[in-house]
Amino acid sequence: MSARQASTVPVGLADDLNALDRLISVGWAVASRTAGTVAWSAAFEQTIADLQATLSDDQVPAPVWYPPIMPLADAERAGYAESFLNLLGSVHALPHQVAADLGLRSAAGGGIDAFAPTGVVLIPAMCYHVYPQLADQTITEAARFDLSGYCYRNERTNELGRLRAYRVRERVLIATADAALAWRDEQLSRARRLLRDLGLQVRTENAADPFFGPGQRLMRSAQLEQKLKFELVSRLYDSDPGTALASANYHKDHFGLAFDIAIEGAGTAHSACLGFGLERIVLALIHEHGDDRRNWPQIPATATSRRGQI
Amino acid sequence: MSARQASTVPVGLADDLNALDRLISVGWAVASRTAGTVAWSAAFEQTIADLQATLSDDQVPAPVWYPPIMPLADAERAGYAESFLNLLGSVHALPHQVAADLGLRSAAGGGIDAFAPTGVVLIPAMCYHVYPQLADQTITEAARFDLSGYCYRNERTNELGRLRAYRVRERVLIATADAALAWRDEQLSRARRLLRDLGLQVRTENAADPFFGPGQRLMRSAQLEQKLKFELVSRLYDSDPGTALASANYHKDHFGLAFDIAIEGAGTAHSACLGFGLERIVLALIHEHGDDRRNWPQIPATATSRRGQI
Repeated sequence: MSARQASTVPVGLADDLNALDRLISVGWAVASRTAGTVAWSAAFEQTIADLQATLSDDQVPAPVWYPPIMPLADAERAGYAESFLNLLGSVHALPHQVAADLGLRSAAGGGIDAFAPTGVVLIPAMCYHVYPQLADQTITEAARFDLSGYCYRNERTNELGRLRAYRVRERVLIATADAALAWRDEQLSRARRLLRDLGLQVRTENAADPFFGPGQRLMRSAQLEQKLKFELVSRLYDSDPGTALASANYHKDHFGLAFDIAIEGAGTAHSACLGFGLERIVLALIHEHGDDRRNWPQIPATATSRRGQI
Repeated sequence: MSARQASTVPVGLADDLNALDRLISVGWAVASRTAGTVAWSAAFEQTIADLQATLSDDQVPAPVWYPPIMPLADAERAGYAESFLNLLGSVHALPHQVAADLGLRSAAGGGIDAFAPTGVVLIPAMCYHVYPQLADQTITEAARFDLSGYCYRNERTNELGRLRAYRVRERVLIATADAALAWRDEQLSRARRLLRDLGLQVRTENAADPFFGPGQRLMRSAQLEQKLKFELVSRLYDSDPGTALASANYHKDHFGLAFDIAIEGAGTAHSACLGFGLERIVLALIHEHGDDRRNWPQIPATATSRRGQI
């Protein structure tokens, strides 16, 4: 059943479909009925858990796990709703008052057309959980975060390497400009070493967020010129031109300004983040090393992660 | 910061708020800015992972992990959208064609008001992933499933024991009437034993789905009379009158009819499920045994789970 079912899910490219079919046939995945999503087997999830453990940083306890939703107001303040409105998923529901006033049966007549925004959106980027926690504050020292959860992007296509619902592990630093930039570079190096230790052939690319549309060429080229974003890129399937497994970003004072975060004696806070695409890394490992984990390099757990891995 | 931040999140009852504040202050949780949700610390997540391992059934490999969204059409066919429309969360987004036609900048002017249903909803119940996989088929033997993921219910209140976004581990059997009922009873006994082995004081209650509104008294009383639903109930905080940690349900032929699933030689398939509320069980364990896991009974992993735990 499983392999045949995959064909009911529209997938972007023929190669993706073959790759997904193959993953299903050998037991890494189960066909999902939701376009742009995959259900993962216990074996795949074990690898995700091992990755979470190896990604734990000795400086910060292993990740805080956030639910898949967050306030729209926080996404708006971060500037996401303005820049990437086309990728945002909003949770709409029947207004409680409508349900109460009309009684459930009558309201059901209107169905989903009567739904209204709840003020909650699916998480577009993990680090958006962080800045609101420090909003309108002056901090006295750098703040570090290590978090994980599901992200959602309302992608137009359904590529295996660009799922709509996927998990991210992310570290964030809020600090002075110098500290944030230095941390971004150090984290990028460490991430590259970690992925190469797992036997992955990654190349480093100076990147721009792929979502910038035709009206945002300036933002795109500015991001490239200023070397704000670097991606560690590898292949998820044979004909894959390259998919980012991790992304290291220096945001300058973008979020510090948006959330009014200052550092004592240093003005507006700067920030940087390092994000790992967990499903993408596992897919790259499978592509590189095959289906038998006994043939893979070990995925080692750090001391921190052994205390608190997920 | 953390303990104080909790007060910005509206919570249903004063006792819940105290309980959540306490969980945050001792490191089990981190204040979330989304009403009705909690962000969990690495220590809490480790306990969730251990629970997943102990809940693995030797008969079926450990859970398939589904993304937090599913097709609206499947929820409609299951009857959820009709019965519990008030609890359903729909993913609305900017229609791709609108974004393409108007250009992103113009469309952004309309903001979230221009969003329309995407055909995808947040998962209201894990087992809804299962029936569509067998829809319009005749199966020759009983089908078992073991799955996990995030559920969402658009709750009106924000109680600690009734979160909007929470994780469920669920086993499902699709089989003949006799087999489904016998399995439900056996699973209920096993679940009760397992929770008691973890040192939890659980009582078994004949229950009805709590969502039936005033217009649905008949459904509610029929469910109670026919003993279709049993809950294993315990306390999550001192004044908690009782919260269901697990629920064992016999659906009769409800889903077999809705999804046109037949069993060879036995007509329409019947089904049953056993669901565990993962956060609730951890909260009950903390309430019963305190904050130091060294004082808890061991949470043992099964042979199956050691091969494929998440």
